[in-house]
Amino acid sequence: MGAGHPAQADCRRGVRAALEGLPAGSLALAAVSGGGDSLALAAALAAEAANHDVTAGAIIVDHGLQEESTDVALLAAQQCADVGLAPVAVVPVEVVGTGEGLEAAARDARYAALAETAAAMGSSNDGGNPLTLVLLGHTRDDQAEQVLLGLARGSGARSLAGMPVLTVREGTPFARPLLHLSRRTTHEACAAWGLTPWTDPMNDDAAFARVRARTALAELESALGPGIGEALTRTADLLRDDADLLDALADDAVPDQGPEGVAVTELADLAPALRSRVWRRLLLAAGAPAGALTAGHVAACDRLVTDWHGQGPLHLPGDLRASRADGRVHLAPAAGGQ
Amino acid sequence: MGAGHPAQADCRRGVRAALEGLPAGSLALAAVSGGGDSLALAAALAAEAANHDVTAGAIIVDHGLQEESTDVALLAAQQCADVGLAPVAVVPVEVVGTGEGLEAAARDARYAALAETAAAMGSSNDGGNPLTLVLLGHTRDDQAEQVLLGLARGSGARSLAGMPVLTVREGTPFARPLLHLSRRTTHEACAAWGLTPWTDPMNDDAAFARVRARTALAELESALGPGIGEALTRTADLLRDDADLLDALADDAVPDQGPEGVAVTELADLAPALRSRVWRRLLLAAGAPAGALTAGHVAACDRLVTDWHGQGPLHLPGDLRASRADGRVHLAPAAGGQ
Repeated sequence: MGAGHPAQADCRRGVRAALEGLPAGSLALAAVSGGGDSLALAAALAAEAANHDVTAGAIIVDHGLQEESTDVALLAAQQCADVGLAPVAVVPVEVVGTGEGLEAAARDARYAALAETAAAMGSSNDGGNPLTLVLLGHTRDDQAEQVLLGLARGSGARSLAGMPVLTVREGTPFARPLLHLSRRTTHEACAAWGLTPWTDPMNDDAAFARVRARTALAELESALGPGIGEALTRTADLLRDDADLLDALADDAVPDQGPEGVAVTELADLAPALRSRVWRRLLLAAGAPAGALTAGHVAACDRLVTDWHGQGPLHLPGDLRASRADGRVHLAPAAGGQ
Repeated sequence: MGAGHPAQADCRRGVRAALEGLPAGSLALAAVSGGGDSLALAAALAAEAANHDVTAGAIIVDHGLQEESTDVALLAAQQCADVGLAPVAVVPVEVVGTGEGLEAAARDARYAALAETAAAMGSSNDGGNPLTLVLLGHTRDDQAEQVLLGLARGSGARSLAGMPVLTVREGTPFARPLLHLSRRTTHEACAAWGLTPWTDPMNDDAAFARVRARTALAELESALGPGIGEALTRTADLLRDDADLLDALADDAVPDQGPEGVAVTELADLAPALRSRVWRRLLLAAGAPAGALTAGHVAACDRLVTDWHGQGPLHLPGDLRASRADGRVHLAPAAGGQ
């Protein structure tokens, strides 16, 4: 398990940083699809674990979406074992959905399966040492695609903030130690390690938004210069910091929403960046479903404060009604009103 | 000057909102290139001025960049006079520079000439009534291109915030009343008004970043859906609000930069979104030229606080040196140090 090629060293350095914070005896599990990114992750983890007091294993998720998916999963498991990872688990995941819904459903199912399997393989993560950490093979290219998709939604800093280096889902910490590396680097590292990445045929299926984002990114590079992927990930990092602070400030700025509603003056005095975030919080607290609430809904509510000329009531997702009367804004279920 | 076509009504509505705030007797001047956006602006201004107590005129800037540019300017001036604008001024502007530098130089020269000519044509803008306002014909498409170019720079919310509806340059207010309309709308309005837009051959010259952004935008639309232009401008609006608040908070958070430098703890306690903005302010105050200062420079300085392991001193634009010693960070001219 050498690190002769610079791409191997890059992958190992990323994994090393992720392992450094772990208590002795922890379990680090690479989430492996069989593609180049996650195979490089698996090999880097195996190489680095030797220098840390951690057990290094892998989880292979088999989505069963293609006929050959079980073969792909078993080949990936074999390669993980060959580089020295143990334990290695293969987990079948059932995915329901089609088209773009399929992407989201597959992602949710994957994270749930990874969290559940990690918890079963490792020690409990309820505050004690040692920890169980799942490593994901996302690269800078994935991040840039994510930012482009957020841009297409047009819903502000948080949707452009991309994937963080560390998240916790269902009690399990997930790290992305390769997020600063390009896909080219992970594939070069695979070649140097003698690994054979699997190429997902869905990577060429333009029915998927992520695949179209990948194509668009290549076109942006040719139009605006080869630095666009890096620029997008730098943008994501900066906007994530912005969104973190503004979200925290908005949490503190949410006024009480009593039966009388909220005084317009309480909202009017807020900076616009906070007011839009406070509106979102008020709407969610009143029962609007997060997935259905758009920047357009929030903007329409905001005009009850900033551009009031007798309009409304507004009908919002979750069968919610927003109205203004007597210097106060009211959010209430439409069924409960007139 | 009818408003029979919906595109004409859209343009007039935008201009009306810009005129509504003006004191009686003010002067509103359309900045006209002869292209479809600014010709529609000129016609909408002429139509709306009749309903407001304002004088409506135009300024045509002749960049002299193409052989026929004087003819283009005179034809634009003629069309402005034909729709009923008076006074109409044609101002020659000399531009020095090439390639992408040429775009920036042309833009700076254009704004300076517009501000100067507006001041000469109207009353002084020093706090008194009536005002002199310059109207610019930028559309949602220009805004989306601007956001894409900001994205390619990767320097955060402010560079993605696009163009505001109202700015003041050299004492002259500039409004963009068509910023919410598409280029298609302004061109439809021109056709309905019987105007003949000029097509700038530079619009097809891929030497210019803005032209490449336009091409990239069209490709993004075909990859991610036709709503991308709107999504980009909505993103710009939201991020402008964010940047305004965060910039104001950063202004208040800048610590004193005495001869001893700044205590690391004063910076370490700030949220990352503020710390990067405070660093930028400290660097500018210490003499770093704004144009040369990148997100990378700011991040390197920030690591003196967040990831200190004895590194530095850093060499920064403006011959500036950043170093850390004894729990303080110092910014000083490199020549003044060892």
